[in-house]
Amino acid sequence: MFSNLCRLFSGTSSSFQAYSNLCRLFSGTSSSFQAYSNLAAKLRIHSIEATCASNSGHPTSCSSIAEIMSVLFFHPSGMHYFPNDPKNPNNDKLVLSKGHAAPILYAAWAEAGLFPTQNLKTLRKINSDLEGHPTPRLNFIDIATGSLGQGLSAACGMAYSMKNFEKNTNKVFTILGDAECAEGSVWEAMNFASYYKLDNLIAIMDINRLGQSDPTMFQHDINQYKAKVEAFGWNAIVVDGHCVEEVVAALSLARHSIGKPTAIVAKTFKGKDFPGIENLMNWHGKPLGDQAGKVIAYLQGLIKPTNEVLKPTNPNGTAVVEIKEPFVIPQPNYAANSKIATRNAYGDGLKALGKDPRIVGLDGDTKNSTMSIFFQQTFPDRFIECFVAEQNMIGTALGTSVRGKVPFISTFSAFFTRGFDQVRLAAISEGNIKFAGSHCGVSIGEDGSSQMGLEDISMFRSIPGSLVLYPSDAVSAYKAVELAANHKGVAYIRTSRPATPILYANTQVFEPKSYVVRESNQDKITVVGAGVTLHEAIKASQILEKQGIHIRVIDMFSIKPVDKITLITSASVTGKKILTVEDHYAEGGIFEAVSGALAQEDIKVWGLHVNELPRSGLADELLEKYNISANQIVMKVKEILG
Amino acid sequence: MFSNLCRLFSGTSSSFQAYSNLCRLFSGTSSSFQAYSNLAAKLRIHSIEATCASNSGHPTSCSSIAEIMSVLFFHPSGMHYFPNDPKNPNNDKLVLSKGHAAPILYAAWAEAGLFPTQNLKTLRKINSDLEGHPTPRLNFIDIATGSLGQGLSAACGMAYSMKNFEKNTNKVFTILGDAECAEGSVWEAMNFASYYKLDNLIAIMDINRLGQSDPTMFQHDINQYKAKVEAFGWNAIVVDGHCVEEVVAALSLARHSIGKPTAIVAKTFKGKDFPGIENLMNWHGKPLGDQAGKVIAYLQGLIKPTNEVLKPTNPNGTAVVEIKEPFVIPQPNYAANSKIATRNAYGDGLKALGKDPRIVGLDGDTKNSTMSIFFQQTFPDRFIECFVAEQNMIGTALGTSVRGKVPFISTFSAFFTRGFDQVRLAAISEGNIKFAGSHCGVSIGEDGSSQMGLEDISMFRSIPGSLVLYPSDAVSAYKAVELAANHKGVAYIRTSRPATPILYANTQVFEPKSYVVRESNQDKITVVGAGVTLHEAIKASQILEKQGIHIRVIDMFSIKPVDKITLITSASVTGKKILTVEDHYAEGGIFEAVSGALAQEDIKVWGLHVNELPRSGLADELLEKYNISANQIVMKVKEILG
Repeated sequence: MFSNLCRLFSGTSSSFQAYSNLCRLFSGTSSSFQAYSNLAAKLRIHSIEATCASNSGHPTSCSSIAEIMSVLFFHPSGMHYFPNDPKNPNNDKLVLSKGHAAPILYAAWAEAGLFPTQNLKTLRKINSDLEGHPTPRLNFIDIATGSLGQGLSAACGMAYSMKNFEKNTNKVFTILGDAECAEGSVWEAMNFASYYKLDNLIAIMDINRLGQSDPTMFQHDINQYKAKVEAFGWNAIVVDGHCVEEVVAALSLARHSIGKPTAIVAKTFKGKDFPGIENLMNWHGKPLGDQAGKVIAYLQGLIKPTNEVLKPTNPNGTAVVEIKEPFVIPQPNYAANSKIATRNAYGDGLKALGKDPRIVGLDGDTKNSTMSIFFQQTFPDRFIECFVAEQNMIGTALGTSVRGKVPFISTFSAFFTRGFDQVRLAAISEGNIKFAGSHCGVSIGEDGSSQMGLEDISMFRSIPGSLVLYPSDAVSAYKAVELAANHKGVAYIRTSRPATPILYANTQVFEPKSYVVRESNQDKITVVGAGVTLHEAIKASQILEKQGIHIRVIDMFSIKPVDKITLITSASVTGKKILTVEDHYAEGGIFEAVSGALAQEDIKVWGLHVNELPRSGLADELLEKYNISANQIVMKVKEILG
Repeated sequence: MFSNLCRLFSGTSSSFQAYSNLCRLFSGTSSSFQAYSNLAAKLRIHSIEATCASNSGHPTSCSSIAEIMSVLFFHPSGMHYFPNDPKNPNNDKLVLSKGHAAPILYAAWAEAGLFPTQNLKTLRKINSDLEGHPTPRLNFIDIATGSLGQGLSAACGMAYSMKNFEKNTNKVFTILGDAECAEGSVWEAMNFASYYKLDNLIAIMDINRLGQSDPTMFQHDINQYKAKVEAFGWNAIVVDGHCVEEVVAALSLARHSIGKPTAIVAKTFKGKDFPGIENLMNWHGKPLGDQAGKVIAYLQGLIKPTNEVLKPTNPNGTAVVEIKEPFVIPQPNYAANSKIATRNAYGDGLKALGKDPRIVGLDGDTKNSTMSIFFQQTFPDRFIECFVAEQNMIGTALGTSVRGKVPFISTFSAFFTRGFDQVRLAAISEGNIKFAGSHCGVSIGEDGSSQMGLEDISMFRSIPGSLVLYPSDAVSAYKAVELAANHKGVAYIRTSRPATPILYANTQVFEPKSYVVRESNQDKITVVGAGVTLHEAIKASQILEKQGIHIRVIDMFSIKPVDKITLITSASVTGKKILTVEDHYAEGGIFEAVSGALAQEDIKVWGLHVNELPRSGLADELLEKYNISANQIVMKVKEILG
């Protein structure tokens, strides 16, 4: 066996310093690996039994990683953790990116002693937290997985935080399926990890050859995977993923990497040790049914007597004390008659908030447009440049959030659509992460439609529990940062490109509500705006006033939650009429948010919004062309009032 | 020079057969490349002048590709095309993935003679189609670019279509920026192109070192790019992107590749030949302002006398005749008392539609769940397995659509969130592409929240001009396929996992409308359902009827457009009350679509929808838990009616 190991290592990069240590490590071992093989068989049996009990799930996808899980959970080369304290910040971490292999993850924690193995048969039942794919409803899950190709980004965020913020020696392990390596997000994360030298990150690629409906693109072409990860700047170690010794050796080597993340490219078989099923198509996501008994009997036969008792390895280190105080920032200091873009005020607010060490800023090569650069210049050590890779940026932010950080992610509002699935999974992960999208709507002007966020309100509103703020002046934008930081969960701040007048005193207190900015006791309709359209509404009110028509103007500010009380109160004294005006499409935007909130009231709602694909032009020309200018508001109000 | 070329080629893969041809090619040339350098200088001048006229835009990002554009448009190694007939199907194609370099693309077409060069100064003006980023409002643009990292996927779709469907010898060129190579979607497309041996695809990577706010991750580490593209199965040729000879040689070589796509990794400088600006940060996206005159004078000085007149090379080939007929499929043949999942009927419909050679099917390793497998089994030559890479799948589909195909993309509804930005760009591209999302909502059951599409209606509704259909039985699902095919633009069909009863006769005619499925003249409220919730509403009506409460039940079917007439007509005779029930979140879903559509009517709307992150369980248990079961409808109706 020792010569096999040497063969294994001789193929690896010469950058490893740990080679001699490792040889010492293995020369002391005997044939005691049988205990790990035994446990792998047990984990397979648990996976079969649990998926039979639920009559659904992915036992064959579990089987391909059984030896890997056995070693990860019980060998010193694997995770160092307290099995009864999965939240302990000194634990090494595991992200199961191929979340459909959840049953074997649950089985490993049960075998480690966290809960009774008989609970495993509650898999996928409505009253059990052992869901079909892992979620943080379980205390040993940090982030939800199940939408493929996302685990590595979250692992990057955790590893980045451990290495750079926490300065500890923890390791982050993640297991990727081969099918999910087709997802581009994996390669965004690969770039990120090598660029930032995350040598505390170990990715295990489970190359089991078979996808859901077909063999994977590259099947068992292991060298192709090795070449890719090496080209992306990682160490690559190829192993037989069913050989405990090779897995142990590779992990030992990976734990000692300096300056580079390590990928263990494991050749495995889907349904390994399931006779008549192993390495065959059409067994994805299927419980074994009447094959189960025969397979379990075979697996039991693989369990050989051994004196060794497997025990997890505990970590070193002292726990970080968690801070619970709310975030507070000082008052801003904007001159009352100045014009300042809300994106600039967002940058000011983020910089002010940055005095709190929990705050992390991330941007995707747009920091001089989103103005997160103000934060970066003051707190460079807590700013992570993520380059043009929005999916990984969101996943990385999620990873820092599970380490107690509060990440603020900035880019153009349009470009968050690139990571909608990551935002979705961040919500399922109960992630406490904040998004700031600049350059919303047609008011960006000449760059044209591909750069205009016109569906971002809709997208962030559809996230359960989200807070969506759309400030209209610098004071409220600055203070929105504090509100977002104190909201538990996903928060979104929408900022605008053009400079707009100050509307509020620096001392104004903001909550997630709406604010009346213009009123009289003769108002005939309530006009609700936000961002640039609020200023158009104010202009419209001035024009209309000269014509003897009074309108109430509301700064919506909080798009989610909708401030029903303020809207109903205003509408009730303005003819039960509301007109919304937004630099966004109608669907899922302000008009529908208001219409939905008031759907059971005796209030009529009209909307002005962008109704077609916009084009390039000057901001003011575009507001007019797409029906959301002061002039268009004047015409619409007159039409409604008849 | 010839020896330089030999040096260049000696480093390339031995798989090229064209080496000797190429040497012959160059041995006949003299120093006539000056004309290409002259044109490059002219293109730079146009880019400066146009962006000065618009006072915005990206002249330095244009400058790094000036020689590449000069050769692509005017040398036989570049594009073969009719300069006055950009839509000619025999043309080679260019996708400018780094869409912010639009001004130089426009300049090249002007220099080729398509329109007068003086028009270039209308760049970004509201009445000009020369927008900030390219869109198909211009007849020489096939797909919109501007959101980075998407061009290669569209180019893949075009190249796949040319090679496999059209069987022609056209080439597709695409120019990528280095910053956008951080986008994972680029690497999804890299896999796709090599897997499908797209040797008619040539990607030029413009490695100009500088991003928007920082240098790129890898700056001028050209070998790192070369290693990556080779690991992804491409030919890689490294060139000095400002050396016309090297660009010509590389393109000549690439045109002759067999079995592999080719990447030309071009080392360039941002702002090349802009003295005081070249290769410096802080010049991204900025017109040259008062530097312009000096730089233009310098560029003019680079233009040297030459006798050569550059002319585009015309292509060979015969034009494909476009078919304009609408799509028609035969009646289905479902047994009236059967239960069939709408996803299965979608598969049936797609298979029936497949007799039309325009139809292409794409899936991302879920075809045995979405049931696009029915199409694949019958028309394997028009099915493209895209593996687990949804972003590239959408971009590839878009590429086939610009070749006259009508692509249907199938995956789980949740996973379309992965490609929201691609869907957004497909709409800006005026793409005629169809999406079918299966496994919507909590009714999928045990797999849990990561697999449940609960925001897909919202997402597809926010696409301008989209059609969104949500069939509730097999007949309407089957016919939705025909409606989607005949809709010009983006269409979305939402299908469900569980089998549901047949509601309609096989002869029923469907339009994008809503349908009354249960009514009496004593109805007290209209309940609107779709998919599984329609069947729950029908059950509720039966329960309520026994208690003497009559309700009208509507199959919404068309979520966008909303059938206001049917809703208002029904509500007007059912107490002006509507209750919507949907297996989706409230935001942007059916409730808000209906509330928005009726916001100016005297109709009150209530909604039952999923209000929190769901969990695993049996489908029926989840419908009950998340308030959208028959039982919950019964309770809600009673509460509303008091």
